Parts: sequence; C-alpha cells; structure tokens
Amino acid sequence: MMRTIKLTIEYDGTNYLGWQVQPKGPTIQRVLEETLKKITGEEVRLIGSGRTDAGVHAFGQVAHFKTHSKISLHSMARALNSLLPPDIVIRRVREVDENFHARKSCKSKIYEYRILNRNLRSAFYNKYAWHIPQKLNLKEMKEATRYLIGEHDFSSFRSVGTPTQTATRKVIRAEWKKGRDGLLYFEIEANGFLKQMVRAMVGTLVEVGRGRLSPEEFQEILQSKDRRKAGPTAPAHGLLLKEVKY
Amino acid sequence: MMRTIKLTIEYDGTNYLGWQVQPKGPTIQRVLEETLKKITGEEVRLIGSGRTDAGVHAFGQVAHFKTHSKISLHSMARALNSLLPPDIVIRRVREVDENFHARKSCKSKIYEYRILNRNLRSAFYNKYAWHIPQKLNLKEMKEATRYLIGEHDFSSFRSVGTPTQTATRKVIRAEWKKGRDGLLYFEIEANGFLKQMVRAMVGTLVEVGRGRLSPEEFQEILQSKDRRKAGPTAPAHGLLLKEVKY
Repeated sequence: MMRTIKLTIEYDGTNYLGWQVQPKGPTIQRVLEETLKKITGEEVRLIGSGRTDAGVHAFGQVAHFKTHSKISLHSMARALNSLLPPDIVIRRVREVDENFHARKSCKSKIYEYRILNRNLRSAFYNKYAWHIPQKLNLKEMKEATRYLIGEHDFSSFRSVGTPTQTATRKVIRAEWKKGRDGLLYFEIEANGFLKQMVRAMVGTLVEVGRGRLSPEEFQEILQSKDRRKAGPTAPAHGLLLKEVKY
Repeated sequence: MMRTIKLTIEYDGTNYLGWQVQPKGPTIQRVLEETLKKITGEEVRLIGSGRTDAGVHAFGQVAHFKTHSKISLHSMARALNSLLPPDIVIRRVREVDENFHARKSCKSKIYEYRILNRNLRSAFYNKYAWHIPQKLNLKEMKEATRYLIGEHDFSSFRSVGTPTQTATRKVIRAEWKKGRDGLLYFEIEANGFLKQMVRAMVGTLVEVGRGRLSPEEFQEILQSKDRRKAGPTAPAHGLLLKEVKY
C-alpha cells in the first residue's frame, strides 16, 4: 500500500547549492532523495515546502514523498540520520494523509534572519549571520517593520526577473529581537513568501537602520511595488527557514 | 624601539591542525605569523599561552610577539582582521610590558567543554559539541566533578606518553550548566592544564553520567594517578579555550 511520509528537516546550508535538485552541485533535495533510495529501494521523488537558496539554513524545512516501503517510521528516522551527512538532520518522520502536499498544504512559514551588528566579526557566526559593523538604529527598523504586517502586494521585495504571478501575501508577524554578542534576529511569519522576499526586506530594513531611509520612505517603497526602489538583497547565509505550518 | 604586543584571539578550530606550527598542514599559529609578517614586514615569532589540539576552538586564546614596527594598535587590529581568514578573529591588541610572556605569565585558564545530550544529532552543533544520545545523569556527574576542585596530581587525566614533569595543578572552579536544546556546558578554571587534561576529565565524567562509574570511583581514579584507569579522551571538537588570565 502506498504511504505518504512527511519529513521535518534541519540543515546547515553552507555546503549546498540550496534545496532544489540542479545539475551543478550538491543540493539538500538530491542528498535526501539518494538516501531515501538506499533505504526504500525506490526512486523517491521528494517535494519540499519550497526552495531555499544556496547557503540558506533550515531548522524545520518540511518535505513529503510517496513510498511502498513497509519500514517503520522509527527505523526510517534512524536509518536516515545514520546515512545522512552531519549537516543534514531529520527531526521528525510522520505518516500523513495521502492528500498532504508539503507545498500546497502549507498554511504559513516562519523565517529568521540573523545580523551580527558589532564592530568585530566573529569566527563562529560568520556562516550564520550577516556581519554589519556600523551601528544600526534598531528603533527605526522596528518602526519600518510594522508596515509589513498585513496583506500587501510585495512586488518591491521580490527577486528581479521572476515570472509574473500574484505578489500578494499576508504577513502575520514580523519582529526584531536583540540577542547576545551584538546579534539581531528578524523573525517573520507569512502565508507565503516570494523569491528572496525576506532577504530583500532585510536588505531594505538595514538601509533604514543605517539612516539612509526613513520608516516612511520604507512604507513608500512597499507601496511603489517597484523592486528597483528597495535596498540590496541581504546575503543568504543569514537566513534560516524556522518552521512550516499546516 | 622593540615593542611587546599581546593578542587575544578567537578561532573556529575545525579546519586547523591545532595551534602549534607543524609541517603537516595549516595551524592557527602559522596563519597568524604569516599575516603578522605581511603587516610588520618582519619574521614574527608568536608565542601562545599554550597549544590547542587539532579541532579545538578558542574564544580567548592569548599570544604575544616582539616587533620593531611602529604601526598603531588600532591599525594592526584592523589589518589583522581584514587579512585573516573568516574563522580567525583578533578580539584585542594591546601593548604590554617587555617582560610579559603569554605562557609563563599566565595565572589561570578557563576551558569550556560542550556536550549535546539528546537523542537527535544537530546540523549546527556537530562541530562544536560532543553528541551523546544516551541520557546522562548530570547529578552524579556534578558530584564527581567536586573531587576535581583544589590542588591534585592529575596524572590520571593526562595524555599517555607525555614526558615526566610535575602533574600537580590547582583547579579553581569546575562546574556543569544546562543550556538549550540538550546542551551541557562544563566549565573549568585551573592554574594550568596538562596535555588533554580537560578531554580526559570529561571522558571520565561521561562514564559517571552513563552509570558505569560512581562519583566515588571517579575520586579513586583521580587518586590512583594512573591514566589507564580513567575513561576515554573526549573528542577535541567539543573543547573551547574560553579565557587566559594574567
């Protein structure tokens, strides 16, 4: 009997060309599919909740696949975690309804973006946070961030040259938190994200933090629906897919 | 005029064969000496507070060198941090008395050892913590740890085959703390450490945590001064040189 299996996956994206299988090099999806083939003996087609770019990390990426294998969920989790490389970990394995679809069933996603805002760079955070030596004005950034909440056309914060489709998304929550050692955490939950949306938002919010844009100008950029008005795209290695909700 | 410069150094030891220059591959000392040569134009001989093994990390390693260079301390710090690879950072540069010696002037050192004590391994901590899936009895480990405090002959916890020299050291502080996500932190301060002493201690304390040794048996091992009675050496990647005091 065909089973539908849902995986919750943690990965350090540093050494991968992102989630999606592509010819040029190792991707998370390919490593997982190859490992699942070893375990199930089948050509598994793994469907993720969405792509993550090269260098982006995940704490709770979700993917599903169909299999005839009768292996128990517990054994599958053990086998996966013993065969996968150290930078990919399966956090949970669940059997789900046959209609479950990792991308289409998704209700919302939570991303985290990390900035190391201090003069000194770090030997430990350099693959997990964007280092900005200049002091950022967090108060102004928080004020600008409020304009993101709610349903908007986010064309200003999408990757240039993406095919036309609706750019309207609903941001449920977006907030900044201060951590230790100069770390700043941006956490955002939305019912969906456009390509490079979080990185474009963070890149533009940092312009506010540097005093180059006011919170009101940030709002105008959002309303302009013009990507060319927004700031640069923040680097991939500061981004982490934290959770996918169904 | 000759100046004596003290450096405080942070490094991720993952990609290095330890501190000390050796022919086989990259070491922290060699990378620093080569970078200092570029900055000062001199053949710099850097003296560390002590070696760290391959894979061991540092938050506050200290080293000193002599130079005729007139470059300001601020410029030296900037030049070092812009030329050094991402996994080595200079936290502080100070000019010190000509008699200062990073090893000989050291009053005490603080090491931290990290254990990830949970069933699931981690994609992020795997280079910075020893993963032990079996639940450890932290209460028993803490009890055994108390026997380390004070002045003792630590021959039981030194690397096998090290040349004879006094093995008496004074442990000022040794304690365990629980962190997030199953992380355990062992912090120990002593007036000096024998080769692989912290890793041998942690390896043996973990035997207590697994229920294979009682705290009293741990004390007997310490008193026996016999390395063969102690537990295995804990892996290098869990260890971090946190601070060197003068």
